[in-house]
Amino acid sequence: MTEASTNMRLKLPVVCFILEIILIILFGVLVEYDYETDAKKWHSKNHSDYENDFYFRYPSFQDVHVMIFIGFGFLMTFLQRYGFSSVGFNFLIAAFALQWATLMQGFFHGMHEGKIHIGVESMINADFCTGSVLISFGAVLGKTSPIQLLVMALFEVILFAVNEFVLLSVLGARDAGGSMTIHTFGAYFGLVVARVLYRPNLDKSKHRNSSVYHSDLFAMIGTIYLWMFWPSFNSAITAHGDDQHRTAMNTYYSLAACTLATYGMSALTAHDGKLDMVHIQNAALAGGVAAGTAGEMMLTPFGSMIVGFLAGIISVLGFKFLSPILEEKLKIQDTCGVHNLHGMPGVLGAIVGAVTAALATSDIYGEGMADVFPDVASGDVEASFQGLRQAISLAVTLGIALLGGLIVGFIMKLPVFGAPPDTICYEDSVYWEVPGDEEGHDDQLTTVVSAECEKLNG
Amino acid sequence: MTEASTNMRLKLPVVCFILEIILIILFGVLVEYDYETDAKKWHSKNHSDYENDFYFRYPSFQDVHVMIFIGFGFLMTFLQRYGFSSVGFNFLIAAFALQWATLMQGFFHGMHEGKIHIGVESMINADFCTGSVLISFGAVLGKTSPIQLLVMALFEVILFAVNEFVLLSVLGARDAGGSMTIHTFGAYFGLVVARVLYRPNLDKSKHRNSSVYHSDLFAMIGTIYLWMFWPSFNSAITAHGDDQHRTAMNTYYSLAACTLATYGMSALTAHDGKLDMVHIQNAALAGGVAAGTAGEMMLTPFGSMIVGFLAGIISVLGFKFLSPILEEKLKIQDTCGVHNLHGMPGVLGAIVGAVTAALATSDIYGEGMADVFPDVASGDVEASFQGLRQAISLAVTLGIALLGGLIVGFIMKLPVFGAPPDTICYEDSVYWEVPGDEEGHDDQLTTVVSAECEKLNG
Amino acid sequence: MTEASTNMRLKLPVVCFILEIILIILFGVLVEYDYETDAKKWHSKNHSDYENDFYFRYPSFQDVHVMIFIGFGFLMTFLQRYGFSSVGFNFLIAAFALQWATLMQGFFHGMHEGKIHIGVESMINADFCTGSVLISFGAVLGKTSPIQLLVMALFEVILFAVNEFVLLSVLGARDAGGSMTIHTFGAYFGLVVARVLYRPNLDKSKHRNSSVYHSDLFAMIGTIYLWMFWPSFNSAITAHGDDQHRTAMNTYYSLAACTLATYGMSALTAHDGKLDMVHIQNAALAGGVAAGTAGEMMLTPFGSMIVGFLAGIISVLGFKFLSPILEEKLKIQDTCGVHNLHGMPGVLGAIVGAVTAALATSDIYGEGMADVFPDVASGDVEASFQGLRQAISLAVTLGIALLGGLIVGFIMKLPVFGAPPDTICYEDSVYWEVPGDEEGHDDQLTTVVSAECEKLNG
Repeated sequence: MTEASTNMRLKLPVVCFILEIILIILFGVLVEYDYETDAKKWHSKNHSDYENDFYFRYPSFQDVHVMIFIGFGFLMTFLQRYGFSSVGFNFLIAAFALQWATLMQGFFHGMHEGKIHIGVESMINADFCTGSVLISFGAVLGKTSPIQLLVMALFEVILFAVNEFVLLSVLGARDAGGSMTIHTFGAYFGLVVARVLYRPNLDKSKHRNSSVYHSDLFAMIGTIYLWMFWPSFNSAITAHGDDQHRTAMNTYYSLAACTLATYGMSALTAHDGKLDMVHIQNAALAGGVAAGTAGEMMLTPFGSMIVGFLAGIISVLGFKFLSPILEEKLKIQDTCGVHNLHGMPGVLGAIVGAVTAALATSDIYGEGMADVFPDVASGDVEASFQGLRQAISLAVTLGIALLGGLIVGFIMKLPVFGAPPDTICYEDSVYWEVPGDEEGHDDQLTTVVSAECEKLNG
Repeated sequence: MTEASTNMRLKLPVVCFILEIILIILFGVLVEYDYETDAKKWHSKNHSDYENDFYFRYPSFQDVHVMIFIGFGFLMTFLQRYGFSSVGFNFLIAAFALQWATLMQGFFHGMHEGKIHIGVESMINADFCTGSVLISFGAVLGKTSPIQLLVMALFEVILFAVNEFVLLSVLGARDAGGSMTIHTFGAYFGLVVARVLYRPNLDKSKHRNSSVYHSDLFAMIGTIYLWMFWPSFNSAITAHGDDQHRTAMNTYYSLAACTLATYGMSALTAHDGKLDMVHIQNAALAGGVAAGTAGEMMLTPFGSMIVGFLAGIISVLGFKFLSPILEEKLKIQDTCGVHNLHGMPGVLGAIVGAVTAALATSDIYGEGMADVFPDVASGDVEASFQGLRQAISLAVTLGIALLGGLIVGFIMKLPVFGAPPDTICYEDSVYWEVPGDEEGHDDQLTTVVSAECEKLNG
Repeated sequence: MTEASTNMRLKLPVVCFILEIILIILFGVLVEYDYETDAKKWHSKNHSDYENDFYFRYPSFQDVHVMIFIGFGFLMTFLQRYGFSSVGFNFLIAAFALQWATLMQGFFHGMHEGKIHIGVESMINADFCTGSVLISFGAVLGKTSPIQLLVMALFEVILFAVNEFVLLSVLGARDAGGSMTIHTFGAYFGLVVARVLYRPNLDKSKHRNSSVYHSDLFAMIGTIYLWMFWPSFNSAITAHGDDQHRTAMNTYYSLAACTLATYGMSALTAHDGKLDMVHIQNAALAGGVAAGTAGEMMLTPFGSMIVGFLAGIISVLGFKFLSPILEEKLKIQDTCGVHNLHGMPGVLGAIVGAVTAALATSDIYGEGMADVFPDVASGDVEASFQGLRQAISLAVTLGIALLGGLIVGFIMKLPVFGAPPDTICYEDSVYWEVPGDEEGHDDQLTTVVSAECEKLNG
């Protein structure tokens, strides 16, 4: 029974320490300051301090950082007894993934004489990759141990970097806000993992797979931060100047339109015409996902609003009609509904990106074409071919995500990582010392869980 | 009875969809990227990327954005059973208002060959206008349906844009942080609406019109974010360079002084010498409101601190002595006390602005006069006349707010918008699917409310 | 008995008003806009607006501001019945301290013809000094009245400014992120104050000196904000360009490595292999503290990660093994464990800074040496001597903190400041009007506390 033990006393320290020590060694061997962070290199040339990329990107980086740690972390606190794990495991796997992503992305983005050069842009990219892992986390929330999550992050980061490399460097696709690389990839990867980890007896924990009043308010902190900072997310690594400016604005309007669609659809589809917090917490964000690829293009606010509006509608409909089917027919127990927030809106965003790219003309972009579609600007390809590249990229992303999720899911299923039993999913006290709540009435529950854990841990 | 039904199944979707589709069409017809967001235009001239207005204003924009969605949203979660509505309706009407404001302000700020040009500055202005609507929301919190709120936003945005146009373009007043345009306008507009919507039997919901321990903590998230980012709010659209710098600093010191005044006054006036959360949550912010007009001027930290100190005192006294009078004598049921946080401090800020403007000399401002008082710098008017303009602007603002609120209040009173009955005000479960809390003890309440709703919707 | 009364009706207003009025007068006499915030001065020379220091530092300032008011404030809400006081007293003493620090630091940093010049950098420095006071607040949390805290802030700010002056101006040490000036100073100052205020009968309030489920989630808001924005904290006042860029990045990696160490150590040392929220909330931040001095140096990400990794280990071990000893043997009741989060990691950071400084070569720093070690760059001192200066600075900091804390502790112990009795420590209702919680079941507790307070206040 030892293999199935949820006790983390040795397993978690061993995994954390080995991973971190390997990271430190690899950083020591492979990583260097880039031109703009190195004292000697930066001062070796003549330029003004305000030209340092730090000032162009650091505010956006911090907004992205808030989305990763507060946004994703608190969005998932909606479960009544899983707040510690939602914020806490989010924190742990993000802290690991951003280090690991620095190495993997650095490796694929091109080494410099055997070294990976890092600066604010690589920090943003590492956070982006981390975001993808956290999306997958949402699909398996409540049903996995922290070690399983670290294992997932370990492999998903590699596959993310491979997919990103294929899309951006091999296929020459554009995806600044990551509709494909981040959202579609993270969602479908996570859904396949959830499928592999299917628990037929999960209804034993059903009473905990829901929110309470305060947990929904905590979750709204996550939602609102994601919503507010999504313009920074999509624009964080676009070209300086008009590109960052335009991307942020397109995303802003896409989200606003999405929000009205979400409220309308929620009242329309929910019980008794009442608004459903699940929709508001999630679907209102779909407009950010869907503007991830085309946001940097000349989508116009008009186009952005249409995209956001559609994304909101699709997302609520997904929660209402598709999620039950996924669970019952396809046996995908998608805790947070990432298919509705990241999966379908990500695919929508990829399609919108392909169409918008195919319609690009130098009449619209002028000299700015070189920033958005360098290959079109240089005459290497036609705009329509750029659109085709984008469409192929979506297919590649889906393929790598589905195949990768399948393999990684089976690795995660190995009975050595301390997954919780079906009876105590969605429950913090499996992995956390949990204080009573104000009433002390949870002592009973804690006792039950403790007994169960002890039995498991033999 | 159908007209009075609180059921939103058809009403809310219809309103949301019609509003959003009209917005999308109007954006398609009227809105264009401005010079700094358009790929072609920006690249048609020779300049450096760091000159793009995005880098001067986007960090401030994001701070303002946080104030609008987190600040206002969570500040209003202090009510024990109205957290979903506070954050959720705040979210909905803000998402609508910022789109609508883009059009209205674009129309009044001057079209370019029939087109509205938008960029980061228009985004900030749209958020500002939204802030005004949310202030009015505070006055009627808990007593209105989401449709009533959208109707209010629809008209208030128009009147805001008219008032702003009269003040800034016709009268030539200065009001960068919106003591008049945002706070005075939003507060008095909302107070008149609250007067028109007066409910003589509101005491039937009195037990819910108060906070609980955790709801006060959630509200403090809103308060602290508003407090911290107010320097960004007041400086967001001031001139580049010393102006943004000075405005942020003046506001910072005004708020700090206001906070000490608030704590002192709260202990002095509250029961048993104990601090009152209502004061801390609200009055400590009055220093930001009161520095809204004069913040960009050479007010000096010394002057700012005096202003903030007075604002804190006035605000606490308002909560203690004036709010009960407003409610009992004037029949204004001001849920959040917006008169104390935005009304009186806004008027104070307008007066301080008028006096500070009247005292401006080129000896103090030097060449910087052109940024703050262009008409004085150009010699068109005397500083004293600029002060007069400011004073007249206050009167105009009060006039438009009072008259506008009266008309819009009566529109909102039409019995078709699904307002809640007196017995279930300040209650989320009228419009939201509300989970139980940890105890399940609220099932009884939910049952009662559901029964009442069904009766209404019969 | 009047001296010991916890009733704040007169005391708190008198203290707040006197302090604020003195501040206002001193600001009126002593403070002026600096070159970059003054309309006349800024416009008197020819330069571009983007050269204004505002654009280099204001985003970092706002991040620091969030750490001070949300980060510290909410981190301390972990106590079950002390959330109002944690956020609220944090707010009060921070608002006071930042004004007072502006004066004290301005005085020591050098007056200009009898005037203190202020701008965004002085605002950051004021927030830094405030941070130090809030660290000390953590050591005495729950056992002090707001007046005691204001008294502590009053004196601690002076001593902070003296220590900072000695370190940076007399000894020529470098400490951009304040491992010594902020963390080591604040922690040991606070610990000595806690020692002087030792309460042998504090176990009478022991049942309140712990968290509940929701209070731990609120505390995580504080933790995550501190964690995310620490890169901005350490880089906020470093030199423009590569220095800010590098410091932020070093801190980012230090924190990430620290987080993995923390989770590993927490599972290893805590009961039953379960994670302990106290560790996650605090130890995961030690990596930011420990990178405070060396962060701006060429520490490399590799070095930063080692430092963060060690800091996390030390911090968890401190919570597990050292805190009980401090309490039982040394009679230091350190409520928040500031010794583990700020004390030891601060000392570690100081040592790392000394070593890194001693190893500096022009081969590594190139022309950038002048930014980081101006005295070494100018040839005035050897790098090894700079390392020695750093080490001496640590000793000086410890000396001033310990001696200062001793004196200030005794001042705070004077029985006129309204400290709570041993029986009602860690309890909001001593100083706040507290609403019931959802159940109303706290009415009983409130009644007990009220009775006790009334007895005291006779």
